[in-house]
Amino acid sequence: MESNLRTSMQQVANFGTPTARDHGADMIKLIEELYPICRSLTGDGVRYTFDLLKNHVPVTTYEVPSGTHVFDWEVPKEWNIKGGWIKGPKGEKIVDFADSNLHVLNYSVPVHKKVGLEELKSHLFSLPEHPDWIPYRTSYYNENWGFCLSHRQLESLEEGEYEVFIDSTLAPGSLTYGEVYLPGETEEEILLSTHICHPSLCNDNLSGIAVMVELIKALQELPHRRHSFRFIFIPTTIGSITWLARNEANTHKIKHGLVATLLGDGHPFTYQKTRNGKLEIDKVATHALINSGQPFEIQQFNPFGFDERQFSTPGFQLPVARLTRSTLYTYREYHSSADNIDAISPTYLKESLDMYLKICLILDRNCKYMNLVPKGEVRLGKRGLYHKIGGNSQHMSDQMAMLWILNYADGTHDLVDIANDSGIPFDKIYEIALILKDKDLLAEA
Amino acid sequence: MESNLRTSMQQVANFGTPTARDHGADMIKLIEELYPICRSLTGDGVRYTFDLLKNHVPVTTYEVPSGTHVFDWEVPKEWNIKGGWIKGPKGEKIVDFADSNLHVLNYSVPVHKKVGLEELKSHLFSLPEHPDWIPYRTSYYNENWGFCLSHRQLESLEEGEYEVFIDSTLAPGSLTYGEVYLPGETEEEILLSTHICHPSLCNDNLSGIAVMVELIKALQELPHRRHSFRFIFIPTTIGSITWLARNEANTHKIKHGLVATLLGDGHPFTYQKTRNGKLEIDKVATHALINSGQPFEIQQFNPFGFDERQFSTPGFQLPVARLTRSTLYTYREYHSSADNIDAISPTYLKESLDMYLKICLILDRNCKYMNLVPKGEVRLGKRGLYHKIGGNSQHMSDQMAMLWILNYADGTHDLVDIANDSGIPFDKIYEIALILKDKDLLAEA
Amino acid sequence: MESNLRTSMQQVANFGTPTARDHGADMIKLIEELYPICRSLTGDGVRYTFDLLKNHVPVTTYEVPSGTHVFDWEVPKEWNIKGGWIKGPKGEKIVDFADSNLHVLNYSVPVHKKVGLEELKSHLFSLPEHPDWIPYRTSYYNENWGFCLSHRQLESLEEGEYEVFIDSTLAPGSLTYGEVYLPGETEEEILLSTHICHPSLCNDNLSGIAVMVELIKALQELPHRRHSFRFIFIPTTIGSITWLARNEANTHKIKHGLVATLLGDGHPFTYQKTRNGKLEIDKVATHALINSGQPFEIQQFNPFGFDERQFSTPGFQLPVARLTRSTLYTYREYHSSADNIDAISPTYLKESLDMYLKICLILDRNCKYMNLVPKGEVRLGKRGLYHKIGGNSQHMSDQMAMLWILNYADGTHDLVDIANDSGIPFDKIYEIALILKDKDLLAEA
Repeated sequence: MESNLRTSMQQVANFGTPTARDHGADMIKLIEELYPICRSLTGDGVRYTFDLLKNHVPVTTYEVPSGTHVFDWEVPKEWNIKGGWIKGPKGEKIVDFADSNLHVLNYSVPVHKKVGLEELKSHLFSLPEHPDWIPYRTSYYNENWGFCLSHRQLESLEEGEYEVFIDSTLAPGSLTYGEVYLPGETEEEILLSTHICHPSLCNDNLSGIAVMVELIKALQELPHRRHSFRFIFIPTTIGSITWLARNEANTHKIKHGLVATLLGDGHPFTYQKTRNGKLEIDKVATHALINSGQPFEIQQFNPFGFDERQFSTPGFQLPVARLTRSTLYTYREYHSSADNIDAISPTYLKESLDMYLKICLILDRNCKYMNLVPKGEVRLGKRGLYHKIGGNSQHMSDQMAMLWILNYADGTHDLVDIANDSGIPFDKIYEIALILKDKDLLAEA
Repeated sequence: MESNLRTSMQQVANFGTPTARDHGADMIKLIEELYPICRSLTGDGVRYTFDLLKNHVPVTTYEVPSGTHVFDWEVPKEWNIKGGWIKGPKGEKIVDFADSNLHVLNYSVPVHKKVGLEELKSHLFSLPEHPDWIPYRTSYYNENWGFCLSHRQLESLEEGEYEVFIDSTLAPGSLTYGEVYLPGETEEEILLSTHICHPSLCNDNLSGIAVMVELIKALQELPHRRHSFRFIFIPTTIGSITWLARNEANTHKIKHGLVATLLGDGHPFTYQKTRNGKLEIDKVATHALINSGQPFEIQQFNPFGFDERQFSTPGFQLPVARLTRSTLYTYREYHSSADNIDAISPTYLKESLDMYLKICLILDRNCKYMNLVPKGEVRLGKRGLYHKIGGNSQHMSDQMAMLWILNYADGTHDLVDIANDSGIPFDKIYEIALILKDKDLLAEA
Repeated sequence: MESNLRTSMQQVANFGTPTARDHGADMIKLIEELYPICRSLTGDGVRYTFDLLKNHVPVTTYEVPSGTHVFDWEVPKEWNIKGGWIKGPKGEKIVDFADSNLHVLNYSVPVHKKVGLEELKSHLFSLPEHPDWIPYRTSYYNENWGFCLSHRQLESLEEGEYEVFIDSTLAPGSLTYGEVYLPGETEEEILLSTHICHPSLCNDNLSGIAVMVELIKALQELPHRRHSFRFIFIPTTIGSITWLARNEANTHKIKHGLVATLLGDGHPFTYQKTRNGKLEIDKVATHALINSGQPFEIQQFNPFGFDERQFSTPGFQLPVARLTRSTLYTYREYHSSADNIDAISPTYLKESLDMYLKICLILDRNCKYMNLVPKGEVRLGKRGLYHKIGGNSQHMSDQMAMLWILNYADGTHDLVDIANDSGIPFDKIYEIALILKDKDLLAEA
């Protein structure tokens, strides 16, 4: 009976995703499927993305009309685009949206006219320091039209008359976002947020979408979850502000959160702490990273980044951190055509999935216990928990874990504290705590 | 009058034991006297040990009947042994309790039979990594018989029939422990605990017994003690649990405590903090060790060790730390026949005694004062406390101590804090504080 | 309008003194003017010093009669001196007050008699380790007469009869101190204290007086001050005790304070923390020193020093720190004739003035804000606070400052905290905070 219990516990405690599928390859496949779509803050690209995601996970989508007031902001007009190009003085197409959806300035208003080189150049964007890459640029709140192209091409443009054409619409419509909610034993939530607004860019942000999809599947397979998990797929900034405005009354349920993106490259994990810096998610993520045996970086909160900015505004101060591999500052290919499928790998995506899963499981399993036999040590022997003479190292390790847990089970130390102070991995502490609870030696505090 | 006061205070403050006796030699003598006795958790060996200790210190002994419930445990049957041996295939005694009381597995049930080599070996214990040493093994809660012998001897055993004989009894009786109580001005107690259950082993634990005996004598000689001191001599684990069960109502009086053993070897002092880690005893021991000018180690609490485990269970959380020289992990001779008189020295025992005495005196003398002339500095000159012109370095040092004490005497800093912040030794701070109190400049907070 | 606001704010934020005058030269000039005067705890030298200071700043002087009880002390008799000399066996003046006012032991009682060499020597003071310097010695509370001279001269004295003459008076009179009060928008005070009791000594303490005079002028020129500033010019120890005794009821208004002296030498700044060690003045001074880009030292409180001792007694515990360049311990020329005009420089005095001004301005401007649009980020663009596409680094820096301030404006972080956490200089944070306040995005907490 004890060994049955142990086996069952070990299965539960066994971090890492099931091995039946090649999760890395599956994530690459999903990214390749989503890559060609031209997403933006709003529009059909986002809706089509959700249509594809619905083949994998039970995502519910919401439409919020343009003009809706959300705190200091309002939902913008909806933008859609069918195509766009520049024709050179000789009439040939020199830049075409059909080749790359980065070529058109995101949120460009429609235009069709002839312009001289000087006027044209005031609407062109390039990256002088990476002359072969096309930049990704937006103009959400300043109506404008423009094209992005390689600096090499921009430099080669000759004097003459150019024809510019952008077949877009910017008109009242709605902002689209999606949610996946996995109910748990309690309404206390773990929030995972990733943005859904970037066009053909792989690491920022399709890697985040792909890892979240696989994480949802892994969490769905768990026999039970103490926390409910909420995944939100939102356009950046206006999306998180809109989500907060519509869900303000329920934000008190959010106990821990992470913002996910930049998860496919080879940079060590970079964890940006919550604004507070000393919350349970900060302790848990630090524990998981230290125990991964891999290099990693931990950074203080900084109000310039991804959607953690919104969750961390003074009116909310939610316990939301960020876990990426690269950051804005270390990812050379950031917001350019070089952020393509070559910039990411299935191995790194899988590592990211495993780290997210590990952190989620520790968060879900961590708790404080009370020792029910608190005066003097528990007599382990009479409960079959004590080796007789000698014993092997497995027994010693189990027994040290028992001593630590029983001593620290005073209602003030959680299992991660015990793991940190004892140097025993969390999964061992968790496994042994369940055995001690099964023996009526522990109760949740 | 002032110089009389100072002389008297210096005598009191003078740490270290009186020099009339050679304390190191006396401790070695006591250890040699106690060494041959076969002690165990219970039994006549322990009682005889107390008979000898009563020649030195006023120890009161208690008998707790077998079967008494003490928290999660019960007092075991009493074990006594007269002898035991193994005869080889040719009838010769190859292992004999008369040669070393380690030869018989402690708490062995009686046995007398003939066994083949294979069965015999399942009852033999040796130390392959130290082939000439006899291990010390016990089987308190699992009725068994067995012998301990050198690995070299074990390996030399030939096939054949062996006769085993253990002349022991395991029967209802009682557990014996002892206490020495030195009353002080208050009922607030400093607890010193050492175990009394090991057979012929010198460093663990006869060194602890010997240092405690001399410490009792030194504390008895003090003109006054603010705290009461309680020394307990107990069998390990079941003894401290039994003591806690019988004294639970008075444990609130324990203000500081130390567990003493492993005090005769040459390892630097190793202080294991209280479970809390930030109590007064932790501060005081750290201060004493730093100011000893010798190397030392300070370790976090660990629930695997000596009787501090029991005092630190969540139902008690007493302020009890541990001070040893070696630890379990660094003492190569631990629980073997090599832990004999050659493993300890009078010099190290004396150093241990002095360190224990120093810590006890600081604990007893430390307190918080209020400056009774708190606004602006005290005018030392009109009280004869200020040098006139110039002054020697002794005066400067006294005067700096006065300034520190008068400034910090605000009810929140104790004398150890003042010593730590000023860099002035505790004994100087204490001496000067008494002078200032005598001048009505200080009152206890 | 915004650019007008910014220009005005930048003027205010522009640390450092106006450049119309050469402040270093002006301070040297004042020190040269004050140098010849023989100051002491009391007497006409102090009064004449205030007469000269009144040409520069609006100092109010107070006279406290001898014998007035001030806490544990009483105001001493007033000391005045016209001259003094020693004539050698041949009748020649070998030591003359007219040459240096250090030659006469400060507070010497009058004397006129003939003495042998042995008796004379018991009244002579020299510095064997600096044989050419005259020491500065006092005998305030032990009536005595004496002379200070170079050790070389002392050693050359031959046997014979000497004539000693000191034309001094020690009689009931009063102790003189001065105050400059610069009222601000609130009664909350920043206290600056310097001593006024040293005779011809430049670094300790004329440098302190000169820097305070220029600091007063700079603070007077500010368009507004939130705090009131109180400068006190007092004799050391008895002066600060007297001031505290007379102003006890108002000490609760003191929010920050600094004791100033030793500000003209080339040693890096040395900041001695408040007794508490974690007050706002400690944070602000540390910020200013770190951001100065120069080496500096920060020391814990020590009850042996200048008048911060009195402000820090347990009955007051005022938030008063000390900022010097050298300290007692590093200033070789301390209390000797070598502390003359050659020991200080206009450059170092100017640096000291700038550092004091910087700390005063940060203290005066630091406050906590509340973000008035706290849920989700503020939409900067619609308020003209956001660059459009691209932007230069000045804009980026402004925008990062906006994000930090708006995020941290939660009533718990002050502007110095924001500067420290963001790594953005205080003046930029302050400038941007005023802009945000002007846009109704912030209100003082």
